[in-house]
Amino acid sequence: MQFSKFGNRLSKDSGILQLMDDLGNAVNTAADEELYMLGGGNPSHIPEVLDILQEELLHVVQDRKDFTNLVGDYDGPQGNEAFISSLCEMFQSEYGWAIDESNVAITNGSQSSFGLIFNLLAGDFKQEGNKKILLPLVPEYIGYGDVSLSDAPLFSAVKPLIEIDDAGFYKYSVNFDELTIGNNIGAVCVSRPTNPTGNVITDEEVQKLSALTKEASVPMIIDGAYGLPFPNIVFTEATPFWDEHVILCLSLSKIGLPGVRTGIVIAQPELIEKLTGANAVFSLAPGSLGPKMMTRLVQNRRLLDISNNLIQPYYQEKVKIAVNAVQQSMADLPVYIHQPEGAIFLWLWFKDLPIDSDELYKRLKAQNVLVIAGQHFFPGIEDENWAHQYECIRVSFTAEEHTLRTGIDKIGNVVRAAFAQR
Amino acid sequence: MQFSKFGNRLSKDSGILQLMDDLGNAVNTAADEELYMLGGGNPSHIPEVLDILQEELLHVVQDRKDFTNLVGDYDGPQGNEAFISSLCEMFQSEYGWAIDESNVAITNGSQSSFGLIFNLLAGDFKQEGNKKILLPLVPEYIGYGDVSLSDAPLFSAVKPLIEIDDAGFYKYSVNFDELTIGNNIGAVCVSRPTNPTGNVITDEEVQKLSALTKEASVPMIIDGAYGLPFPNIVFTEATPFWDEHVILCLSLSKIGLPGVRTGIVIAQPELIEKLTGANAVFSLAPGSLGPKMMTRLVQNRRLLDISNNLIQPYYQEKVKIAVNAVQQSMADLPVYIHQPEGAIFLWLWFKDLPIDSDELYKRLKAQNVLVIAGQHFFPGIEDENWAHQYECIRVSFTAEEHTLRTGIDKIGNVVRAAFAQR
Repeated sequence: MQFSKFGNRLSKDSGILQLMDDLGNAVNTAADEELYMLGGGNPSHIPEVLDILQEELLHVVQDRKDFTNLVGDYDGPQGNEAFISSLCEMFQSEYGWAIDESNVAITNGSQSSFGLIFNLLAGDFKQEGNKKILLPLVPEYIGYGDVSLSDAPLFSAVKPLIEIDDAGFYKYSVNFDELTIGNNIGAVCVSRPTNPTGNVITDEEVQKLSALTKEASVPMIIDGAYGLPFPNIVFTEATPFWDEHVILCLSLSKIGLPGVRTGIVIAQPELIEKLTGANAVFSLAPGSLGPKMMTRLVQNRRLLDISNNLIQPYYQEKVKIAVNAVQQSMADLPVYIHQPEGAIFLWLWFKDLPIDSDELYKRLKAQNVLVIAGQHFFPGIEDENWAHQYECIRVSFTAEEHTLRTGIDKIGNVVRAAFAQR
Repeated sequence: MQFSKFGNRLSKDSGILQLMDDLGNAVNTAADEELYMLGGGNPSHIPEVLDILQEELLHVVQDRKDFTNLVGDYDGPQGNEAFISSLCEMFQSEYGWAIDESNVAITNGSQSSFGLIFNLLAGDFKQEGNKKILLPLVPEYIGYGDVSLSDAPLFSAVKPLIEIDDAGFYKYSVNFDELTIGNNIGAVCVSRPTNPTGNVITDEEVQKLSALTKEASVPMIIDGAYGLPFPNIVFTEATPFWDEHVILCLSLSKIGLPGVRTGIVIAQPELIEKLTGANAVFSLAPGSLGPKMMTRLVQNRRLLDISNNLIQPYYQEKVKIAVNAVQQSMADLPVYIHQPEGAIFLWLWFKDLPIDSDELYKRLKAQNVLVIAGQHFFPGIEDENWAHQYECIRVSFTAEEHTLRTGIDKIGNVVRAAFAQR
């Protein structure tokens, strides 16, 4: 079978495909085989949250009219109107954002949002050649790497500043001295918290980026899939942010609904119109399940209550266990943990690791430990010799404690063996 | 805001966006305003079918483990494994198709299937320039018109043969004399039943197309969203068809689940791998709802039972009402009805209509009657002077009888006025 250029770009080796394949295989692994699933981005199953979500969905499915509307009618291509209205009301009254229904679109998940937004704002332009998405801080999300519909590289990135403390932690921050938004930049994008590192760019960094993008008249995309205002998996001080030039992307996945595939985009009406058109052309309409089961929880603000009082504390506890496990089992190794300020991952840097992170991934997979190799999280970095990008892995801490501790022990053993072989 | 070429192609005037916008507006129209919704492709709400679907979804949602699996886990990017396995078993045992799990992928609805497949098999090729999708029979589905990711036209089409009978019906058939599959053709595609016309290409036409495509070594895409083996909205003799070079696209929408967004593709493993990669890159994984609520109905074959004994008879009855309404209210007009052999639409041809179908659409919309203008259903036809393509409309017959009859009366009045003005 012959494939187009588009088809040939969809390689079997894409980072995101490897990740999702592992995840699918993990979910479907035979029960007798112990798997240490510290890979993918599947959130934990938090019983108290699932109680509420199950109750909401039952409420919809038991009512014949609601059920019929859930499964039996297409939503419009912008997404479910009642859900969009409830979100607008919440954003207005809770955060004072000046938005209305023309500022919000629903997609089939955050990944779809980014695929569309990046290709709308960057890639092939009629007059001006190619434009890129500028990532002010890498590592950045693995899923960004493969979405381009054009041949030219989609991303431009700036190496971060790295600050190491005495306790074995370090933190990336934006190197504003190196950051320039040229004419070839279509938008600036940052995930907050950052997937994979758990970094949360500070309010000050947000303000600076906002001022720079506003001045350059390019949109500032904030990927808030793990962040603000919901699901609020943030362990540090940080303020929800939106402004007229901001494209804020949210998701229901990390509330506990990854199988439901609901993304939310808050942006300027002209972008929302394009997303609406893209939804119509590429999927007629986004799915109804997420909107229908969550509208009431937005209206009565339980969504925020769940985020702040169930989800945030749950992962805050989890991250302590994960950090403790790394410190206990890898005390003899040159490991630095990125400050875990948010999201559901530890980002481990093994300084001077003698093998690259892809090889480490493979050796761990052979032991039934799934993590994500760090080297796929540096889109837009052109300096191939920058050793740091090959020395990191992403470790999800969503698993239950035994799996998490045993998995981390095994990572320590494999890394130790790699250093010993050198 | 500046948009890429991809962005600029997503115009507000795309036929499919107009259609989906009307549909969304219709669903959300104030209750005091009577709307004659004979537009979009929303299937009817068939009570007996909804009973079964509601029971199945309740069964999933009431069970905590099933519920958690439904909402709380990503499926793999190829789609839910249990659902895929159940489909394979059914296709093997019921139709003798030589397929296994490597031949099936799930998407976020048929529209997504087509967006991906067309761009994989046509568009921009490295060595050979541009390739096209050949439509052996137009009118063809409106949603095909806008999915192209490249600048060049995506479709090539052949004008159909038109045979009119004495009873005011007519039928399109493939003009095999004009059909050549050149080197610039990446695939051949036909919907069966055809959306918008209700045409069902005969088993003989299928065999001929199959032989031609096999000989030319290009895939033959069959869009079975309304067809075989399910939901079987077919009112004539026709056999389900699959072969090694066939890409059969099915959907759960016309079973009664349009809001659920589940598409099914049965094809060669190398295409399934590409779709899996595209799912991962553009949406991580397809939604879980359709697969989870339908797996049991595939296993126990109630899906086929529902299709053959509830859905098919329901629409068979509906189409009689619709034809009768047209014959009664338009007896004085030069109207020809395409033989309604399947799907949920009447395709009306007003011979020598003095206005084009877009203008007719607008005049009808002003009277709260929504239909679809026919001229968007001729992708790939280069002869702009072919009057026939401006003289047709698509009328859905899914509405309840009063709405349907009154709506058709109103269409008659508007068309009558247009002829009178000439």
